Order: sequence, then C-alpha cells, then structure tokens
Amino acid sequence: MPWSPPSPGTLPLERVRSVTIAKLDQAHGTIEHAFQGRPSRQHAMRQKASQEQSKDFGISLTPLFAGIAAYNRGNGLVDIGFACHDGTYSIDFSVRTVDILMDNPPSELAEWLVTLLREYCTSHYFKFLGIGITAELASLCPELPARLWSVLDLVPMIFSRGLEYPRGRKSHPTLDEEADSMARKCLMYFGPNQQPRVQVGYRNEVEVDANGHVRIASVSNYKQTVSPETWKAVMHYIASIKEKNIKLAFFNSTPQGGGVALMRHALIRFFRSVGVDARWYVPVFKPEAFRITKTNHNILQGVAEPGESLSAQQQAILYEWVRESANRYWLAENGPLRPRSEGGADIIIVDDPQMPEVIKISKEVDPDRPVIFRSHIQIRSDLTAQAGTPAADVWDWLFERVRLADVFISHPVREFVPQTLDMRKVGYMPASTDWMDGLNKTLNTYSLQHYVNVFNTECFKFRMTKLDYPTRDFIAQIARFDPAKGIPDVIASYAELRRLYMKDWANDDIPQLVIAGHGAVDDPYASKIYDETLDLLDRLYADIKNDVVVMRLGPLDQMLSMLLQCAKVGLQLSTREGFEVKISEALHKGKPVIATKVGGIPLQIQHGLNGFLVEPGDYRAVAKHLLYLLTDEQMFQRMSNYAATHISDEVSTVGNALSWLYLADTMCSGGTVLPDSNWINDMAREQAGVPYTESECRLPRMPELDQSLVEREGVMLRVRDRASSIC
Amino acid sequence: MPWSPPSPGTLPLERVRSVTIAKLDQAHGTIEHAFQGRPSRQHAMRQKASQEQSKDFGISLTPLFAGIAAYNRGNGLVDIGFACHDGTYSIDFSVRTVDILMDNPPSELAEWLVTLLREYCTSHYFKFLGIGITAELASLCPELPARLWSVLDLVPMIFSRGLEYPRGRKSHPTLDEEADSMARKCLMYFGPNQQPRVQVGYRNEVEVDANGHVRIASVSNYKQTVSPETWKAVMHYIASIKEKNIKLAFFNSTPQGGGVALMRHALIRFFRSVGVDARWYVPVFKPEAFRITKTNHNILQGVAEPGESLSAQQQAILYEWVRESANRYWLAENGPLRPRSEGGADIIIVDDPQMPEVIKISKEVDPDRPVIFRSHIQIRSDLTAQAGTPAADVWDWLFERVRLADVFISHPVREFVPQTLDMRKVGYMPASTDWMDGLNKTLNTYSLQHYVNVFNTECFKFRMTKLDYPTRDFIAQIARFDPAKGIPDVIASYAELRRLYMKDWANDDIPQLVIAGHGAVDDPYASKIYDETLDLLDRLYADIKNDVVVMRLGPLDQMLSMLLQCAKVGLQLSTREGFEVKISEALHKGKPVIATKVGGIPLQIQHGLNGFLVEPGDYRAVAKHLLYLLTDEQMFQRMSNYAATHISDEVSTVGNALSWLYLADTMCSGGTVLPDSNWINDMAREQAGVPYTESECRLPRMPELDQSLVEREGVMLRVRDRASSIC
Repeated sequence: MPWSPPSPGTLPLERVRSVTIAKLDQAHGTIEHAFQGRPSRQHAMRQKASQEQSKDFGISLTPLFAGIAAYNRGNGLVDIGFACHDGTYSIDFSVRTVDILMDNPPSELAEWLVTLLREYCTSHYFKFLGIGITAELASLCPELPARLWSVLDLVPMIFSRGLEYPRGRKSHPTLDEEADSMARKCLMYFGPNQQPRVQVGYRNEVEVDANGHVRIASVSNYKQTVSPETWKAVMHYIASIKEKNIKLAFFNSTPQGGGVALMRHALIRFFRSVGVDARWYVPVFKPEAFRITKTNHNILQGVAEPGESLSAQQQAILYEWVRESANRYWLAENGPLRPRSEGGADIIIVDDPQMPEVIKISKEVDPDRPVIFRSHIQIRSDLTAQAGTPAADVWDWLFERVRLADVFISHPVREFVPQTLDMRKVGYMPASTDWMDGLNKTLNTYSLQHYVNVFNTECFKFRMTKLDYPTRDFIAQIARFDPAKGIPDVIASYAELRRLYMKDWANDDIPQLVIAGHGAVDDPYASKIYDETLDLLDRLYADIKNDVVVMRLGPLDQMLSMLLQCAKVGLQLSTREGFEVKISEALHKGKPVIATKVGGIPLQIQHGLNGFLVEPGDYRAVAKHLLYLLTDEQMFQRMSNYAATHISDEVSTVGNALSWLYLADTMCSGGTVLPDSNWINDMAREQAGVPYTESECRLPRMPELDQSLVEREGVMLRVRDRASSIC
Repeated sequence: MPWSPPSPGTLPLERVRSVTIAKLDQAHGTIEHAFQGRPSRQHAMRQKASQEQSKDFGISLTPLFAGIAAYNRGNGLVDIGFACHDGTYSIDFSVRTVDILMDNPPSELAEWLVTLLREYCTSHYFKFLGIGITAELASLCPELPARLWSVLDLVPMIFSRGLEYPRGRKSHPTLDEEADSMARKCLMYFGPNQQPRVQVGYRNEVEVDANGHVRIASVSNYKQTVSPETWKAVMHYIASIKEKNIKLAFFNSTPQGGGVALMRHALIRFFRSVGVDARWYVPVFKPEAFRITKTNHNILQGVAEPGESLSAQQQAILYEWVRESANRYWLAENGPLRPRSEGGADIIIVDDPQMPEVIKISKEVDPDRPVIFRSHIQIRSDLTAQAGTPAADVWDWLFERVRLADVFISHPVREFVPQTLDMRKVGYMPASTDWMDGLNKTLNTYSLQHYVNVFNTECFKFRMTKLDYPTRDFIAQIARFDPAKGIPDVIASYAELRRLYMKDWANDDIPQLVIAGHGAVDDPYASKIYDETLDLLDRLYADIKNDVVVMRLGPLDQMLSMLLQCAKVGLQLSTREGFEVKISEALHKGKPVIATKVGGIPLQIQHGLNGFLVEPGDYRAVAKHLLYLLTDEQMFQRMSNYAATHISDEVSTVGNALSWLYLADTMCSGGTVLPDSNWINDMAREQAGVPYTESECRLPRMPELDQSLVEREGVMLRVRDRASSIC
C-alpha cells in the first residue's frame, strides 16, 4: 500500500468563523468566553527565530492537557467548551456556540476543531500531550480523536461525562466545568514519563489504551493502511469469528517493553475497533522470575555469560510463578484458562518463552482447546541441538511444554527452529509494526521541531553532541545497545566515508551519525555497549567523534519516529538478528537502509531497490553505498520512493491480525492447522479466497532475494543494476 | 530557634556490612539477590568531571522510583527487599537478610537503609523521586521516611502491603514482589510533572499528602523547628482540642497554587501528625467562577484593568457556584457544614475572599457555630472606602457576608483592614512557611547539583543565560512576575552595582543576577511582566543583560530552595506587598535580604542585622548595600548567621498552628474571642500560660523597626551600626 502522509488540519478557520455566536443562554449555563491565556512575546520571538534559522531548529514547547466538551442544541447549533491544564493548574478555557453551516457537519466540525486547537497551540508554543473528549462530542464527530492524534500528535481519550448531577440543580454541568473535567480526567492517566500509564487490571488483563479510553484510529483508518485484498481477507475472518463468538486470549510475561508488547498493544487495539473479543493477560510481576527468564532468553540466543544455566531451583521458581498467576487470576471465575464450557477463552496464544507452563495448564484444563506458541527469539538451533549445553537444557525445559501446543509460530528464518520440533506444526510469521502509532506516524514540522528540541535537550543534559539537523543531514542506526547490533561496524563505516570520501567537504555538507535506541538507563548489558561505543570513539575516532551522536532514549515512541523521519539514510549493521521490523519502519518513511545479510533482514531489503545488503563487518561496502545515496540525489529519490511504496502488509498490524484471525477461526471451528513450514499469511489469504496475486507486495518466501518479484519491476530493476554497478 | 542543617546519612556502611547474610530460606520465599543494574561508566565520567570542575556544576540524574519492604524474623534478623522502577519498567531489585547487631536497632537500621540507598543513588547517578515503604517497615523504623525525605530528597510514601494473598499459596508474597509493588504504588501517585498529584476526594476534601501516604516529618521533627515555649503552648491546646474532640474545617477555593494552599497543606500535615481532626475543603472546580474571583482579587488590591467590576450576573454565578458545592458536598450527610448536632465541624475557617458565601451558609445552618474569616490579600482600604468605586462594590459584596464571621484575621498591616469592619473582631496573623517542606529544607550537594542541572536545562530550552554557580555568585529575587514586585528596580540596582562599582572586576568575581519565580506559563499578567523585563534588558541594559537570568519556573518546590540556598544575597524590591514570607525563607537559609519598606516586609527585616530596608525605587541604596554584602565577608557572615538564627516561630507551620489551635479551642469552648487588633499569637501564648519572654524572637508588633528588641542584641547592634555607617 503506497505510503502517504496524513493531510494536516487545513480547513481555513475563516470558513467557520462566520458562524453565529449565540447569545447568553442561561438555560444551558453557557456564557460565551474567549481564551484569556497569553503567551510571552519574548518567548515566542526566541522560538520563532529558531524556526526561521535552521541552525537551531528545535522549539521549546510547554506540555499541556486539554479538555473539550460539546452540547448539541439541535438546528445546527452546537455549544463547545475547551479547557487547558498544565498538569498542576487549569490555565485557560473558552466556551462558545457555533452554528454549523456546513455540507458535512460531523467531519467539517471535527476539522474545524482540529484547526482551532492547532492554531491555539502554535500561537502559544504549546504541546498538548493529551485531550479528554466527551463521549457526546466523540459521537457527534467520530473522526475527531484520530484526526487529533494524527495532526496534533496528542493522545485523545474519550470519557463519558461522569460529573455527578448536583442535588437541586436543574441543568447539566456547564461546559466550562465539563471541559475542565475532561482535561483533568485525561491527565490522570499520565504518569511521570508524560505518557499514559500501561495498566494491568482485573484477572491481570492488560488494559490496552487505558482500557479503551484512548482512540487513535478508526476502522476506516485501518482500512487505509493495507491493500484491498488484505482488507477483504481480514473482514472475511472477522465476520466468521464474530458470528461464532470466538474469544482469543493472548499471554506473555510483560505488558510493556520490547517488540511483543508493542505488537500486542497494536493488535488488541485493532481487534477492539472491529469488535473481535481478544484479550491479553500477563502474570503477576515477580522480579526474581524475570531475572531468571532474562537469563534463559540469553542462553537460547547464545549470548549468556559462561556458566549461566537453568537450575532445578530456578525451574521451581518459574513453575510457582506461573502456576500462582494462573490460580490467582486465569483459572478463577471468568478466567481465560477456565474450560470453554465454563466461559474460558476459545483459543490460547502464548507469545513468550518465559511461561510455556501456560500451555500445559490450558491442556490440563481443556485438552481439546487449541493452543498456539509463538517464539519471537532467534533460538540458536545449533546450540540447542548439542546435548549437555545450557542452551540444550533450557530448550528441553521449554520443549517439554511447547510440544503440547498445536501450532508453533516462528520468525520466518529456518535456523531459528530447533530440530526436535514436529515440523508439521511449524508456521512462519514476521514481526509487525503499526503504521498509526507513535513509532511510525508522520510528524508535521511543528512536532518535529518539538522532538528535535527534546532530543537536543537530552543531549545537552548528557553532554553529548547535538543534532545539527536540518543544516546537516544525518545517518541513523536506531537499535538497542546490544552486542549483536554491530555498532563498531556502524562507526567504522562512517569513519571510512568521512576519511576516504569526505575529506575536503564543507562542514555543512557532511552528515552527522546518530546511534540511538530505547533502553533502560541501568540495563547492565546496554551500559556496557554504550560505554564501549564511546570508548571506541575516544580511542580510534577522535577526528570524527564530535559528529557522532550516541544516545540512549527514554520510552517516547515519537522520538524514534522523529529520528527516522529526519534521517537521510538508515543503517542496520547487526551481526545477528531476529527479524528487526525497524528496517520496515525506516523503509516506510522512505529511507533507504543499508543492512547486513543476517536473520530476517534480507526479507525486508531488496538490494539496490530500497537499500543495500552487505556482509556483516564489510564497512567499506557500507561507506560506498552511503556515498552513493548521499551524492546521487535522483537515484536517492527513486530508492526512497520505492522503499516507501513497497512495504508488505504482513509487517503491519492489520496484516499480522490476518494471520491470527485465520488461525483462530480455523482452529476453533474444529479444523486442524498444520502449517508445515509455510507462512501463515499465505494460508490465510488462500483460505479466505483471496490468494496473493503477482502484483502484490509480499515478503520473499525464502531468505534469499526473491528474483521473480524483482524481475517484475522493470524500471526498478534498472535502478538496481545501476546502483549495483556504482557500488 | 537556631537553624541547623539536617545531618546527612553518615552511618558507615562497614558498620552493618558485617551482618550475617542468612542462607536461602524458602519458607519465607527469600533468596538473596544483589542489585544487578549497572550505570554507564562513560556517563559517570562525564558527570564526575562536572562535579569536580565547578565551571559545570550540574549533574544529570536519571529519575527513578524505589520500593522497600521488610520481614522481621525476630532474633535481630530482618529480611529487606529493594526494587527500582524507572516509571515504565522495573529495572533492578535486591533481597537480603541482615542481622541487626546494633545498640538502637530502629534508628540504626533506618540510618543504614538511608546510607545504602544514598550510595546506590550516587554511584548510579540516580535521583529517586519517590519511595514506597511497607507499613511493616515504617513501624519497624519510624524515623526512616522523614530521614529519606531529608537526606535523599525523595517523597516517602507508606502503604500497607495490599497484595492479594493467592489461593493455595502458603507464604506471604515474597519480598521482591512486595518491594516492586511498593515502587509501583508510589509511582501511581506521580503525575506528568514528576510530583505527587494533589487530589480532591470525598466531600471535596483535599487529600493532603496523598491522603496521608506521604510522610515527610514526624512529631519530633516538628518539635525541633520551634522553641520549647512555642511547643509547650502548642501541646497545651492540642491536648485540650483532642480531649474535646473538636473538629476544624478549613475552606478555600483551590487545593494548590499560591500561598494559602501551601500553608494549608503544611498545616493539615502537622495536625494529622499530632492527631488533631482538621480537614480542608474546596469547591467544585468551575473555570468561569475562577475568572470572576481573580478579577475581584485584582479589584480589591487596586490592580484591575480600568472598567472591571463585579456585575450582578457575576455575583449570581459566584452564588450558584458556592451554593452548589455546599449542597452537593458540604451539607450532604457527614458534610462539614451540617449543624454540629448532626456531625458537622465545630469551627469553620474561610481563608479566601472567593467564597464568603460559606460564612453565610454556616450561620444559616448553625448560627452559634464559630466562623473565622481570614483575609490574605492586601486590601486597598483607601479604595474600598470610596463609595462607587469597583473596589467599594466588591468590598460591599464581601462585607455583607464577612461581617457574619466571629473573627476577622488579617496580615499584620493596619492598612489592609477596611474601616467598615468592627475592629474588635480583627486579629493579626502573619503568613507562614514550612521549614521541612521542599521549599525550605536544606539540600545536600548531590541534590543541589541535580537541581542546578534541571534549572540550567530549562535555561537551555528557553535560550536563556545559564547559572555559572559556583564559579560566580548570584543575587536573587525570587518572586512572581507581577507589576508590584519591583523588577525594574531590581535590574536598575544590579546595573548600578555593575556600572558604578564593578567596572574593573574580573568576570568570575562579578555575581550574576537571577530573577525567577513560579508561574503558569500562559498567565497573561505574568507573560506581560516577563516580556517587559526582557525588553527592558534589551533596551537599556545591553552591557549587562547576559549576566541576568530571568526564568519562569514550573511548580517544583526544590528549585526555589536550590536558588535560595545557592544565592549570596536576596532582594525583594516590591513596590507593594502583603507579607511575603519568601523573605523569611531566605533569612532562614542565612541569606541577608535587601528589601523595600512596604506591607509586611519591615516586620521581617531588621535593618543592618539580617538585611537592609530601602525606600521603594531607591536603586542606588540597594547597589550600595549589595556592594557591602559582597565585599565585607566577615560582616556578611555575621549578618548571615544573625538572619538564620533570628526567625520568629510565628512564620513557621507550628507557630501558625498555635494561633489556629488557640482560636479553635477557645471559640469552641463557649469563649468569645475579640482580638481588638492584637496578634493572635500573643493571645495564644498568654492563655496557654507561656507568655513571650524578652529573649525570644518575635515579629515586631508594629510595622516600624522594634527598637526594644534590637537594643537587647549587644553585638548585633554594633554590627548594625557599622553596616549603617558604611551604607
């Protein structure tokens, strides 16, 4: 599906400013009030100067919360109340009556509100973090929440009015009160990281999107993210699943942090929007168990410290931990693991090597209920095959439980599948990402300037080189600080580019290098790699180190989106990799990516079309490709365009949902699914009667470059040839 | 009471590191675990460099939350669990068993924990924002919470365990789970401003200190903040009030923002710690009503825009607003305004000109119940006396209700009391501040470095000159951006100092000037003054403007404490003033203050002893006094010491409580209180049988300098004489 940036809120305010402002109407308690807040002119001047001088692109915005309420009087008259809150105080409000003289009231009113709020924000140098919207208004303007998320980059939350009706009061709460109450309700969900908290509720179910209050996308938005074929297949299964009242229950160990949680939030959000009953459960949080499972994770991936293994005592702790969560939450009344006859879920999906015990419990309780296990890690099947190694021990422990599952889902890389498995049960699914969440949505210039300022402020705090964007371009590798991410190769490639090709370039023409990723600041592994990176720059790269920005970032999605959106070229020089959906995210933003031929990376990069593939460690090739992309602007544009327009639906939330829907629908209808090393997505499309056609984008079905797919692309093939001949 | 900084957590860890680490004890689920988190060495190096080079004093710390739980096995063995959370993820934990071989287990264990946490923080460059402590541990170490607040500058919160006991599980939740649960519970109370939210609960009662979970001070801490005489008098009334079960109910319009709310939080916190039943209520939040009351406020103080007045319609809105809050919350079952015979409060205190209607309601419901009105604003009694002015109209509206109160409390300035009042009802009370809250507590170097970094980061964001402290000293005026704060005089004084006296000084010897204050960023009044300040610097002071730091600060108490603690000299050059307790706060930190002779300022400054008094606008005198304080170090030290050791108890929470306790005890016991322009504090001390003695510090009982008090100070008088002769 071709990528297109969302249109900004562009409805001219003039169009609606001609509305009638109604007179005072005491019956509804509405008196007209304009905003009274006044920004500092000096502050505005200083920020404006930075907007105009690209040398200092960032602007410093004040974070705020908003509330908005409406009362529909009928006859086209709507009262609107706004309120602003700075997290401590209510700072401003307005109440007005508008006469909607429009062709399409709901969507034009939404657009007018978006424009009004955008003007208020930009003229005051505000950044709304969230907005509370009354349910009445949301039903009057169904498109409003997603538009606010898309244009103003704020978290829209819907609340029913909820103010107590006072005794002895005739009318409803007035709109100033209601709007203010909305702002404060919204704010209550935000934690000290200035983001909505992830909460776990009854039965330890993850309350995705503040239990549904947050609304960043509508069904029609989702529809636009995929091809008509994918959408048709998805709708086929949704209809069937809803008709059969099939209930899905996902289990993994943590509600946030890492790829599984990101995917799961997005998936549940989508399922909720289309009315599929899918829920997501996590166990009680037990630090001791987490430390063990982290070690297991490292052992299976072959990166544990020597001597680390899974002791019998640790096994007992893991057993206790999961059994306890099950007894306390999931097997209790209305729990998802109860037998289907007693209201339990119809299909169990365990997406985590931390708690295979859940599979066993489900099979004990209801042996015929389908259970799927998904392995999202790159298991070193070579190590697990060597008896007596810690990896083999952990795999044995895992396998004893996993073998009870009906289907085993893996990243689409043959090497990640241990040989002891019954290969008929194994099916492939790539990781996925969400085109509408904070990691991927397109940010407008105002938001970009805000995030550049936030990023540079962090750099200032940590005494790190700041971003000179847009005066200078930058090359970015966005990844965790992990030994397998090839950071030394990233630096070596940049040094080669600088020293060999850019010796005489003007400073403004030389791109910076950004190495950044999310990561808890005290993660011992990340700290080690972060230190090694800076040491390396000090030791071997003194000549260029001041152009390298190395940052560990907090959990703010949009920061990564900003970096990908502003970067000129992406790098992903991992020495070992699972799937790394960040590559597709960069491509989606039209950034050619230079990456290594490991794990699932070659599935995403078509050499010479949307980026380049290199052997791990071949920094010279990387430098050559970089030079090419930085100097041949016409070619760069073609590759950028190709990248943005050739993303497979499989890596998006809706495409990912298709696979789960197919599995659930088929397995819960008495059918047996034996993928036998096939891609679930292909099976889903076929069974829905919408098999892939030749013209569709699809990840290649083998780890090597899919020649047949490339050869269909006439022009693009020539692009690739030319690119290959140069580099 | 002489001021003394709290001792740091100094118990050597060695003393306790010799404890026995118990073996694995499955029965209690406790397995020994060390912390595993690892900070970046490179980050530490960069921060350490800044600690050693005073040029860059600030250090960048990672904000975190902690949890701590304990299980007392008896026989001196205590299991301790710690956990850390970064607001999104749990990042580290430890569990260990300690054998307390100490003389005084509770306080030494507390000190050991403080030291342990301090070492963990400083070595990882962390800043704990809050800590959750189990009720078990708090009762084992009663001093722990206040010590953590004082030494580590974190918000301690106590929670009962609260984890569900699992079905089929024998032992209690293990300590890793409990500690983690404590960290997460604590974190739940923190909002996007990284501070505990102020919440309003049932009956619209303000839930001070997260409804009691926060514990920053114990009774013994309070005792140390005042003289034995004050404490004796306070205890006298507390005993009486508790015996009679007297219930106090305070009313004002907002739970945060401004001096009344600050004082009220501190007062309720103290009353709670000593077991006095005092509650604090606010009305429903109604933006429209707030806008009107803000205007009234300005009219009474003579600073409203021409043409602003209180219309009949606005009166109706205020009436509706308060009546509705009363009907909905305060007159409902168990409400504080219910008659005493039906469980209502025994005394009503209305501390706000916004809602005098509460007085009327209380008198309607229970005519004999005592009601006190406190006026905290500097009413322009000259304007209210001129019939037909907006000020007279507002005063008439206020007076119609206020006259029903039994006592009228005012700032101790005769001019603030309108003449229509029955002077027999009028008594004086100064504003007060809390020596243990974030605004005043002494910060250790580590915390100072953190707040300097936060301050300078804000300066960076707003493109403002940064603090060069401690390379250079600075002079500070801490006050809102308000036309009456004399900011132009502050700048003129600094310019005079620079141009006349410091022409040839080395840059590092020249102090910076800081003009800073709390304030909502969009407050139209503050924005105007902020802009005028920067315009003025641009226009007339280009030669010095880069040494002037002008900042509007968010609602973080410790930022102001840092500024006062690091400043060399304080200024308060208001052209009109109420009491301005910030002056006492600066004096308490040992900072001589140069201030104008207006409002309640001369009550706090003794010319030549703890600062200097000047006529408003006399910038030449200010510059001379500044030069004197900046050049005569010996004299400066004497004045600094005098300032810190001559603060009257009246301006502290406990001294302030004494007045309220006296009023409540006397008025609720059938006694009539007719202050007749006396100070409530004097009446309280006398009736408690502890009248003031000559040697005690007391605010002068007349606005002029209290000669008798000064003359008793032999040495100090000479200091003053010498100071006066120089300046």
